[in-house]
Amino acid sequence: MTYCVGLYVREGLVLLADTRTNAGIDHVSTFGKMHIVEAPGQRVLALLTAGNLAITQAVVARLQEGVWLDGNRPTLFDVGQMSHAAQLVGAAVRDVFARDGQALAGQGVAFDCSFLLAGEILGGPPRLYLIYSAGNFIEATEDTPFLQIGEVKYGKPILDRALTFDTSLADGIKLVLVSMDSTLRSNLTVGMPIDLALIAAGALRVTLRRRITEEDGYFHLVRERWAAALRDAYLELPAPDWLAS
Amino acid sequence: MTYCVGLYVREGLVLLADTRTNAGIDHVSTFGKMHIVEAPGQRVLALLTAGNLAITQAVVARLQEGVWLDGNRPTLFDVGQMSHAAQLVGAAVRDVFARDGQALAGQGVAFDCSFLLAGEILGGPPRLYLIYSAGNFIEATEDTPFLQIGEVKYGKPILDRALTFDTSLADGIKLVLVSMDSTLRSNLTVGMPIDLALIAAGALRVTLRRRITEEDGYFHLVRERWAAALRDAYLELPAPDWLAS
Repeated sequence: MTYCVGLYVREGLVLLADTRTNAGIDHVSTFGKMHIVEAPGQRVLALLTAGNLAITQAVVARLQEGVWLDGNRPTLFDVGQMSHAAQLVGAAVRDVFARDGQALAGQGVAFDCSFLLAGEILGGPPRLYLIYSAGNFIEATEDTPFLQIGEVKYGKPILDRALTFDTSLADGIKLVLVSMDSTLRSNLTVGMPIDLALIAAGALRVTLRRRITEEDGYFHLVRERWAAALRDAYLELPAPDWLAS
Repeated sequence: MTYCVGLYVREGLVLLADTRTNAGIDHVSTFGKMHIVEAPGQRVLALLTAGNLAITQAVVARLQEGVWLDGNRPTLFDVGQMSHAAQLVGAAVRDVFARDGQALAGQGVAFDCSFLLAGEILGGPPRLYLIYSAGNFIEATEDTPFLQIGEVKYGKPILDRALTFDTSLADGIKLVLVSMDSTLRSNLTVGMPIDLALIAAGALRVTLRRRITEEDGYFHLVRERWAAALRDAYLELPAPDWLAS
């Protein structure tokens, strides 16, 4: 499994992905699930992937080679705005489905893939999309300023509770790390290291990119303090007033 | 959907179930999912249900009428120990599958049901089981002192982090309420009111049973304090030391 999360806040975009890929518990590997397309000052896009690795790698390869679309073969370096980038990812997904879908169905393998696409292209605002295996997509809004793919549920409650569009990028980093930590603790198939990227609004480049390993002191601190804070918080709750009766 | 959780701790058993049943978002009803079998001083058992309501009601009806087993027709009032009670629930599930499974499959409806069975029978210790739709089951242990059915993921991280076999019943109540609160916030198909039961070890009766509604002052307090504690905890985390660089 995979867990990827993207935040869409006023100050920009925060992206986090784990790196574990597995086909059964005896076949576990590390693959980067975050792909960056960057032309500093012009555009910066990040594509995060979840699902069947053969499918997601085929989609990423299509995007690098260019996807046949309206007689052209654009890549993410060519599209003029973020919504066209999301359409291009969708077209690449449909292209892979057209080639491999029938053979996969013949083997009883689901066409399982999903993508987060985040970024900014000169002249437009930052945007965050979730592209489905059907090639269609949704977009994060100020009301729901995050999107997730993969093993999404364990890490969702903290985002539901604490994240708003006005959350700062620094606080956003804390939130995605806490969200990932909850997922790592509850699902062994989501694994370290994890890849973080920060794209500040208007920067038109990756503001920060960091691979966080087991040895990362800050992530250690987040995990320990968060666990302690949760324990303290529940211990400090009073006992039910109706318990004695 | 449903969320039911059972804790198996040194002091006894804590059980919590929501009451929402839905078939599509325009058909939402309230049904109790917690069924108590009690002969004070002799035995106390609680059965919590998740899945297709027609199936789980058929299983509960079988258990009330008695399940044909080895030439007898025992109910949960007749079995001599908790493991036999779990087998009886499994036998009832298999009986319903034998009658309805083919017709359901013909309509493309999955045989979707699962059960938590908790209780104590005179002469034996308290026990907590999860019975699957195949009629087989697992048991909670001191190492993993909780079991869940239904929409289990949102409420799992806090249990993974904070619950141990030595957690008190009073603290256990807090934990299942926090776990339910996380689920309620993140999944609209899990709904209030919620049913709580406490079975203290050795009591051989229901120690406490309470339907918690939207108006319950203590649950309000838990929800508000927990949300505030999470927000405070994440805000108090320092910013990453590598963010400035």
